[in-house]
Amino acid sequence: MRDPGDVFHLAIPARDLDETQRFYVDGLGCHLARRYDDRITLDFFGDQVVCHLSDRWERDPGDLYPRHFGVTFRRREDFDALVRLAEARGLDVYAPVGHRFEGRVEEHLTFVLRDPSNNLLEFKHYFDPRMMH
Amino acid sequence: MRDPGDVFHLAIPARDLDETQRFYVDGLGCHLARRYDDRITLDFFGDQVVCHLSDRWERDPGDLYPRHFGVTFRRREDFDALVRLAEARGLDVYAPVGHRFEGRVEEHLTFVLRDPSNNLLEFKHYFDPRMMH
Amino acid sequence: MRDPGDVFHLAIPARDLDETQRFYVDGLGCHLARRYDDRITLDFFGDQVVCHLSDRWERDPGDLYPRHFGVTFRRREDFDALVRLAEARGLDVYAPVGHRFEGRVEEHLTFVLRDPSNNLLEFKHYFDPRMMH
Amino acid sequence: MRDPGDVFHLAIPARDLDETQRFYVDGLGCHLARRYDDRITLDFFGDQVVCHLSDRWERDPGDLYPRHFGVTFRRREDFDALVRLAEARGLDVYAPVGHRFEGRVEEHLTFVLRDPSNNLLEFKHYFDPRMMH
Amino acid sequence: MRDPGDVFHLAIPARDLDETQRFYVDGLGCHLARRYDDRITLDFFGDQVVCHLSDRWERDPGDLYPRHFGVTFRRREDFDALVRLAEARGLDVYAPVGHRFEGRVEEHLTFVLRDPSNNLLEFKHYFDPRMMH
Amino acid sequence: MRDPGDVFHLAIPARDLDETQRFYVDGLGCHLARRYDDRITLDFFGDQVVCHLSDRWERDPGDLYPRHFGVTFRRREDFDALVRLAEARGLDVYAPVGHRFEGRVEEHLTFVLRDPSNNLLEFKHYFDPRMMH
Amino acid sequence: MRDPGDVFHLAIPARDLDETQRFYVDGLGCHLARRYDDRITLDFFGDQVVCHLSDRWERDPGDLYPRHFGVTFRRREDFDALVRLAEARGLDVYAPVGHRFEGRVEEHLTFVLRDPSNNLLEFKHYFDPRMMH
Amino acid sequence: MRDPGDVFHLAIPARDLDETQRFYVDGLGCHLARRYDDRITLDFFGDQVVCHLSDRWERDPGDLYPRHFGVTFRRREDFDALVRLAEARGLDVYAPVGHRFEGRVEEHLTFVLRDPSNNLLEFKHYFDPRMMH
Repeated sequence: MRDPGDVFHLAIPARDLDETQRFYVDGLGCHLARRYDDRITLDFFGDQVVCHLSDRWERDPGDLYPRHFGVTFRRREDFDALVRLAEARGLDVYAPVGHRFEGRVEEHLTFVLRDPSNNLLEFKHYFDPRMMH
Repeated sequence: MRDPGDVFHLAIPARDLDETQRFYVDGLGCHLARRYDDRITLDFFGDQVVCHLSDRWERDPGDLYPRHFGVTFRRREDFDALVRLAEARGLDVYAPVGHRFEGRVEEHLTFVLRDPSNNLLEFKHYFDPRMMH
Repeated sequence: MRDPGDVFHLAIPARDLDETQRFYVDGLGCHLARRYDDRITLDFFGDQVVCHLSDRWERDPGDLYPRHFGVTFRRREDFDALVRLAEARGLDVYAPVGHRFEGRVEEHLTFVLRDPSNNLLEFKHYFDPRMMH
Repeated sequence: MRDPGDVFHLAIPARDLDETQRFYVDGLGCHLARRYDDRITLDFFGDQVVCHLSDRWERDPGDLYPRHFGVTFRRREDFDALVRLAEARGLDVYAPVGHRFEGRVEEHLTFVLRDPSNNLLEFKHYFDPRMMH
Repeated sequence: MRDPGDVFHLAIPARDLDETQRFYVDGLGCHLARRYDDRITLDFFGDQVVCHLSDRWERDPGDLYPRHFGVTFRRREDFDALVRLAEARGLDVYAPVGHRFEGRVEEHLTFVLRDPSNNLLEFKHYFDPRMMH
Repeated sequence: MRDPGDVFHLAIPARDLDETQRFYVDGLGCHLARRYDDRITLDFFGDQVVCHLSDRWERDPGDLYPRHFGVTFRRREDFDALVRLAEARGLDVYAPVGHRFEGRVEEHLTFVLRDPSNNLLEFKHYFDPRMMH
Repeated sequence: MRDPGDVFHLAIPARDLDETQRFYVDGLGCHLARRYDDRITLDFFGDQVVCHLSDRWERDPGDLYPRHFGVTFRRREDFDALVRLAEARGLDVYAPVGHRFEGRVEEHLTFVLRDPSNNLLEFKHYFDPRMMH
Repeated sequence: MRDPGDVFHLAIPARDLDETQRFYVDGLGCHLARRYDDRITLDFFGDQVVCHLSDRWERDPGDLYPRHFGVTFRRREDFDALVRLAEARGLDVYAPVGHRFEGRVEEHLTFVLRDPSNNLLEFKHYFDPRMMH
């Protein structure tokens, strides 16, 4: 149902735009689309993430639930490349590669990063691609 | 850079799963992928939104910034169809169709819905598709 | 979720293979993939329909529900072309072009043909493509 | 000839909607598009299957011919994943993985499930993809 | 069934390679892929046509049947552009734009060129794209 | 430059339509699009080949040059599948699998069949796909 | 022949990286992929342009020939949008919209910008898309 | 952001059109789109390179920076095929296959050719495709 021309967009809080740009662009390899005084907009794996300068950022990332976002990779090699990138560039790992729902159809790998404003980014890979939603 | 096989995923809080399913499936026309005791997972315009039963939902939607999510439609007709659907099904409109950045390259239409847990969903259409990120 | 390389397949009864081939190939413009003594297999709008010689065909098509099959066209012009073809070639029309769920999001056009074994074929076009499933 | 925007649709009888939803959504992993009092509509591997509450369901599945439906997978791994899913979730297997037309160009694997209303679902994989129709 | 990575190829006789290259490359706008002493190979609308220096070229094009080749355009505008190109560049027109099977589903436009070795090239556009094969 | 919606079409002579249909449809696995009194039209690997009943068929296939046609497969496995099909179904092999231009960039595999009207069909696979034209 | 996964890349000189980023990112709407001390790399309309800090930049843009680069748009509306963007953001126009080869098949629109290092960027739109190469 | 219908175009100087055509068409396997008295236009890996007869060609290629152009291949096998082609056809190698940024995310293979007018062509392959821009 995804139209390849459409873009998912997500707005999240950022406590500082410079450190945010360093994390997402220099670190995670996202492309910087635009920067304004109060926000930056990113080409985040082909979708749009907008980081708004705001005092409403999470002081404590606490639990992965109920708020996080990220990419579910169709191919294992893309998941592995993201993990390698995070290690090579020393990104802040909130949870190392884990294995969830082993032995069930929903089985998948998960890897969680934390951005400087305590937003949590989860990357996943399902063994059965029909479970990606 | 978006790989058509990949899926963006977003986890958000929900105060009640039944009303959440009514809003997203019966209302917004998303497809229900799975339902567990503590969450439902949705095929949200081709990407994945997971609604977690949680006490951490926003009591007050307050401002559109810094947190919201949605779809930026490549074609105007898809934006209009979403607005019609919201009206026909009486979804909770947080902000009617608006026009932002008129006369600038970033010019776009915007339309904001509110789900039962006060999560805000913004749908957009840019006149210049190069501004979608 | 549809993988473009995959094919939906449907097996239905046929009381006579010659008349079945005339209806589907000479009439409806499907391509004949293979013919065996007891069945023919068709490239039916890109999917596979297999017509098995069988005594279990429906003597009376009766109601459209609960059994029928067909194609939901994404574009109105493809729906219209199918209707024109049916008229130009004198196919057996079970129900002329109709309008269902007017004023609702599920609104769509429908057109129903009957094959020589009383199988019913429904062709549809939804005004809001998100309702195609 | 398949237009990627189009959708094959199939209507079948169901004796009970709850058990039907359990089989197709919780079991087979199809996405629930809509539920009405008298039917549910499914995103069935990207196409549409509508299950109508009806007294005309098959009391006895009897033979695979002349009525069944399903997906022919282009890639072997997708066929295997479907078989694994059926086992992991204990779906009702009508016929285990079989091998048909060995040594001929039409050679393929086949696997048949039965839904709660005795509709038969056949999943296939051809070694020569030109035989998929 | 067409795999987008595959290429149709056709070998035809040419009485002279220079005039052949002038017709196909300078005239028809095909791209020259390779030239050898005895043949040239062309990217002919995305497929491959190889023109072999040979004494077996047709002295008399005679009738359009049973031998000719060309492209059936999906869109009318591409057919029209080809006709304009032939006029603007003074290509040898064997038969001007014609209309065949009027009032029938197979209705189409046709336009025929002649290359310097009397090979006939027919370009077509069907009003109902399902008739393109 | 190939537009995926367009179709290459080729018209060739046939001395008898029944044997032609047996060769192309029952043998080579092409799909029969239409049959008229004087010709059959085929979905030939996604393109269109029209076989016209004609007295102008080649009495002697003679040499592969300057006239033949066929498909250049992007993937080796599709070439191999075609060779297996020809063997399994006993098609008339004009030239077995051969290797041309070894050690050069144009290196490719070739396999030639003969239809009942002495038209020659060459199937190819290049090791460097940039040489397919 | 263009593989959609591949990327054209072009390296050009820049006299200053800050003004270069302002022109390409803030002005032309390209996405910033990476910035190093001696260069920035850009997602330039989907391809890669790398701007190297260098003393070898052109002091005088002089003539459009023999050096320039840019995008040829398939659709007129994308060409027009680029022209609008250049006007709205006051980019340095080297040559306004012009019309070349009128009345010939190669007819096209052209529009030329100058970056701060005197590199010339030409954007084009051909009326006959077969002339884009 | 790359629209598959668009074409990147690059204009470069050439000191002689015949030797330029030999290098790009007979050597590198590009397709010749058009030749005029003062330039040739090439289908260069799907994009357009125009070689203008000009006295402004580089007498000394000097350094790879700041001017060069080429293709970044998504798949390693396409990079390797290009290297094999250059060797088989004895193209002028400016720099043999090299490895840059080893151990970093930007790690890639590079291979540089020189055309007869001293224009430098760099072909690349990144191990992490997210670094292609």
